[in-house]
Amino acid sequence: MPDRKSSFIYENPAVEQAAETIKTAISGRKMLIIAGNCWVDYRGRASSTLNPGERVLIIKEDGSVLVHRTKGYEPVNWQPPGCIFHTSWKNNVVLIKAIRRRPHETLAVYFDRIYLLAVLGLVDKGEFSLYASEEDMQKAILLQPSIVEEGLKLIVYEKKVEPGFIDVYAADKNGKLVVIEIKRKTAGKDAALQLAKYVDSLRKTVTRDVRGILVAPQIAKGVQKILTTLGLEFKQLDPRRCAEIVKEKETKKLIDFY
Amino acid sequence: MPDRKSSFIYENPAVEQAAETIKTAISGRKMLIIAGNCWVDYRGRASSTLNPGERVLIIKEDGSVLVHRTKGYEPVNWQPPGCIFHTSWKNNVVLIKAIRRRPHETLAVYFDRIYLLAVLGLVDKGEFSLYASEEDMQKAILLQPSIVEEGLKLIVYEKKVEPGFIDVYAADKNGKLVVIEIKRKTAGKDAALQLAKYVDSLRKTVTRDVRGILVAPQIAKGVQKILTTLGLEFKQLDPRRCAEIVKEKETKKLIDFY
Repeated sequence: MPDRKSSFIYENPAVEQAAETIKTAISGRKMLIIAGNCWVDYRGRASSTLNPGERVLIIKEDGSVLVHRTKGYEPVNWQPPGCIFHTSWKNNVVLIKAIRRRPHETLAVYFDRIYLLAVLGLVDKGEFSLYASEEDMQKAILLQPSIVEEGLKLIVYEKKVEPGFIDVYAADKNGKLVVIEIKRKTAGKDAALQLAKYVDSLRKTVTRDVRGILVAPQIAKGVQKILTTLGLEFKQLDPRRCAEIVKEKETKKLIDFY
Repeated sequence: MPDRKSSFIYENPAVEQAAETIKTAISGRKMLIIAGNCWVDYRGRASSTLNPGERVLIIKEDGSVLVHRTKGYEPVNWQPPGCIFHTSWKNNVVLIKAIRRRPHETLAVYFDRIYLLAVLGLVDKGEFSLYASEEDMQKAILLQPSIVEEGLKLIVYEKKVEPGFIDVYAADKNGKLVVIEIKRKTAGKDAALQLAKYVDSLRKTVTRDVRGILVAPQIAKGVQKILTTLGLEFKQLDPRRCAEIVKEKETKKLIDFY
């Protein structure tokens, strides 16, 4: 069991005490959760202001930052890992500045009332596993063909050719036809040969150049050599990323709809 | 000042007490923050498991859910607003199930130790304003042309034509040329006429069909009629969404790079 003494919870701390606690927590790489009345300024590529209201600020041990309102699954402001922090206080207001160097961005969060200040020393080594289906991977490619290749343009999915069905049938930016075979696990020799069959079958019926791309999280030993010999290609694609793309796009579509 | 009595903080609550508090908080549409040792199962389009470790669970008043680990700005598991919750406890473990109907998804979070349970009655009416530049909007279209139109393919940006520079020059899915003029604020008559000049200039030099699209958050009264008369189109695009696209894509690129 982890050492629970590394976590501290403060209710309604005074501003000076809060500022000192926040400084110590950040330099000690603790996770910080602050709930209270705040306003936020962001200056970087774009710029934004968030007027006063009660929200939750989360600072993680890797220097990433999230500002969450009472609604919505997305943070209203956020910064990726690697921020540098400056905490100060004046006139009963705590200012936490999160700064990134490249690109230069500054997120400034001002609190005039803090209801909860939690300094959490959490230990997390648990593994995350995501299982996405080949259908998810196919759907992600249809929704966002650029995850396979910039400029890829979908023609049709599940195209019938002599030996079976092509997962995704597309054209590349130079107008060459592209046959995509998807595997959700390590792709072996079988997958390479299946793709070769589809490509060969198609080459007999069309006059344009035909490329074959095997899309999978990884390929088995020796399969790259087979692909090269057959004039085929491999594109590494993470099923987890595919599942996230499908979920994000469908959620946004649903939210845009309302 | 809001009624602070609507927030409650519990340190190291017993499992039964935590389960009852969570039930009441969710039915009372409070924001819930739980830090403790947990494991997570997700079944839906894809499926995932997260092995035991110490994390933070956030349930918002609109029924959205986030599970945050100690690192990274993205949640490891999340659900959009509208979840239905079932909370129960057995053998010293609290189970919080967040269920969505369409698509059918279940996120199950099991806690065997809770260090912090915060029930927050936050009031947030502050306005959020984001200022993105025309350059951001242009960059977002270059990174993800589909935000203007499915199948749009970039040819070049800042193309020089007789009257000036075209913001984005592209081809649509039918091979027609597309001239895009971007405005970050309400587009007026001037913007429509500027676009018309570019389109006319181009039509003199190419044999393919040329479309002109005015991209802006909104157009002024009467401008749609002018566009229609000139054979031009309007596409509504939110500068905020553009800034988010640019930030997300650049962050992902940076993270993929490491």
